[in-house]
Amino acid sequence: MKKILVINSGSSSFKFKLFSFPEEKVLAEGMADRVGLDDSSFETKLADKSKHVDNIDIPDQATAVKLLLTNLKKYDVINDPHEIIGIGHRIVAGGEKFKNSSLITKDNLHEIYDLQEYAPLHNVAEADDIKAFIDRLPDVPEVAVFDTSFHQSLDPVHYLYSVPYEYYRKYKVRKYGAHGTSVRFVTQKAAQMLNKPLTDLRLIVCHLGSGASITAVKDGKSLDTSMGFTPVAGITMSTRSGDVDPSLLEYVMHKENLIMDEMISILNHKSGLLGISEISPDMRDLREDMTPLTGEKKRKADLARNIFINRICRYIGSYIVEMSGVDGIIFTAGVGEHDYGVRERVMNALKFLGMKPDLEANRANKEGLISQPDSKIATLLIPTNEELMIERDVVRVAKLK
Amino acid sequence: MKKILVINSGSSSFKFKLFSFPEEKVLAEGMADRVGLDDSSFETKLADKSKHVDNIDIPDQATAVKLLLTNLKKYDVINDPHEIIGIGHRIVAGGEKFKNSSLITKDNLHEIYDLQEYAPLHNVAEADDIKAFIDRLPDVPEVAVFDTSFHQSLDPVHYLYSVPYEYYRKYKVRKYGAHGTSVRFVTQKAAQMLNKPLTDLRLIVCHLGSGASITAVKDGKSLDTSMGFTPVAGITMSTRSGDVDPSLLEYVMHKENLIMDEMISILNHKSGLLGISEISPDMRDLREDMTPLTGEKKRKADLARNIFINRICRYIGSYIVEMSGVDGIIFTAGVGEHDYGVRERVMNALKFLGMKPDLEANRANKEGLISQPDSKIATLLIPTNEELMIERDVVRVAKLK
Repeated sequence: MKKILVINSGSSSFKFKLFSFPEEKVLAEGMADRVGLDDSSFETKLADKSKHVDNIDIPDQATAVKLLLTNLKKYDVINDPHEIIGIGHRIVAGGEKFKNSSLITKDNLHEIYDLQEYAPLHNVAEADDIKAFIDRLPDVPEVAVFDTSFHQSLDPVHYLYSVPYEYYRKYKVRKYGAHGTSVRFVTQKAAQMLNKPLTDLRLIVCHLGSGASITAVKDGKSLDTSMGFTPVAGITMSTRSGDVDPSLLEYVMHKENLIMDEMISILNHKSGLLGISEISPDMRDLREDMTPLTGEKKRKADLARNIFINRICRYIGSYIVEMSGVDGIIFTAGVGEHDYGVRERVMNALKFLGMKPDLEANRANKEGLISQPDSKIATLLIPTNEELMIERDVVRVAKLK
Repeated sequence: MKKILVINSGSSSFKFKLFSFPEEKVLAEGMADRVGLDDSSFETKLADKSKHVDNIDIPDQATAVKLLLTNLKKYDVINDPHEIIGIGHRIVAGGEKFKNSSLITKDNLHEIYDLQEYAPLHNVAEADDIKAFIDRLPDVPEVAVFDTSFHQSLDPVHYLYSVPYEYYRKYKVRKYGAHGTSVRFVTQKAAQMLNKPLTDLRLIVCHLGSGASITAVKDGKSLDTSMGFTPVAGITMSTRSGDVDPSLLEYVMHKENLIMDEMISILNHKSGLLGISEISPDMRDLREDMTPLTGEKKRKADLARNIFINRICRYIGSYIVEMSGVDGIIFTAGVGEHDYGVRERVMNALKFLGMKPDLEANRANKEGLISQPDSKIATLLIPTNEELMIERDVVRVAKLK
């Protein structure tokens, strides 16, 4: 049986999913955790729901790759590594170089390492993985799928910052965006669900995970997106600030005696819902229907939630004007899929444009239409599946049959 | 004849306008230039259009004030300084302390000095002016009119950044906005022109000067505004960047070997239209109907102009959603009053909401309605007049009769 492997590396972890081809069934999934650190482990979950955890030393990505292939054989998921006919890798930064998912060989692998300064913790680990697979399975095509490439369709009006142009000329400082793989997946699905060609739709995707972004998709292409040069920009996130006045940094650094690295780290890790609420970065801890809070804690939790919803609405408004209207809004990822209250309030804010929420469908937290059939803006809940999108890209780019 | 004096100080300059009361006629205006620097001068323009320039040493604001009073007498504008029954001062930063235009005496003057760290170059010079008038005309009421106070009506959802809450608690880091005096003036005028109570209108003000901002005014109050903790945030301006990904600063500082002060200075003085176009901060130099450009220069001028218009439209879209619609859009200040092309393109971008531009009226560049009578969004060109608004605040706050 033919199989396609999808790898998603973090800086010190490595998730995998093995799909049957062409059935797109998940045969196994799991992760190598704490790669290069103490207490590393390897977890394999099989289709029969059984789970195997190996507490084993994993000094580097190459070892993790070796272990993965060994375990797939050990647990009878594959008989021979050559059943794997294609491998897909999620890559964080594709810069301006990679405008599409691309076949990677030892000849162009360096281009992923070259982009490491845009995503220092990620691109190197991801390129190391590709290299390890090239060494072990030199004949199997490897396809890199970039978080950024879908947004390479942006026009300079949308991707340039209003800073000295030489920063773009010299360093390619511009908006790159992220979550492109997720946005492609849910917009393709939305077109199917709405039974219309994607190229005829103006869609706005609210990818609301711990990282969160809003993207305007017109004619099947990304027109504009809220994340920027890095994923810290845009809307309020779990721990990321989203947009801030740049002068705020200077002021706070001076007051708190911080250097720039520390300030940027605070904007990435101690801001967002966590920073405002001073309670938690997890929206579930701020929802009054899930977590009873009172007094000042309740006020701060509500404030964080209200700010989060406000920033979503603000970007939606911007993108409605940029597209001269909107046909569909899609909610996806953790909060987008599971927090009916956020969705309900965003939909209510758009009633003046003919949005008619279907409150009952919305509260079910299930994939499907959550606006009424005659709503001027169709609204959909669509669970994202980046691994499946990567699997499909492997098939498409490597021309697998 | 009773007179009211309005003072607008910069860091090293000082503009004045003398109004008759209650007729609101301008009797004289002018400026002290290069205060505290070499080659300082004092200019006085009279109602008969005659202009007098004195090249004279002006070491400080107190000398400038003395010179002003001397000149007004010398040129027969006043017979006695006590004809001046009230003095209004434009103050840049009012913090959270000043929620309205306020009477300033020697007892509370320190509060304006105390806010100097929010506007180091401005608040001190402005407070020095007030002090000089208190010394010379101790019985004349002085009213401070703040750029920020109109935006003190913002809700925490709109004024807080998604950064650690302690920065607000400890340092009052939040959105303050600016251009409040201009926005008040043009929205009051708009209500008159539309013959509706201001409290029944949802308005968006595009104050497009060399500093530029977009403000949503609902029920006569500022609901949200594009400038932030400082005036560098928001839309693209002549030399200011507006919104940027904060991580961009870290990256560029590293590449260009800059310290934070230098980076913030670049975002204030070398960005915006100037930064993108690499031609000029002045929109007139980027307009193809005013300045013939070709090739790369033309491309960059168009790019700067397109980005400027895009950012205006994005904020308008956000504010339309925040107000669940909009009744009127107002264009004011340099570009807003004189660049029909910018206005036309912004109006065209809103046609999908029932905007019907009156192209002929718009091209006249004159105060009035520039949308058609049956447009769902009334659009107005209204020249701003901050000095007149300050004069009216003096009358109101000092209860002058």
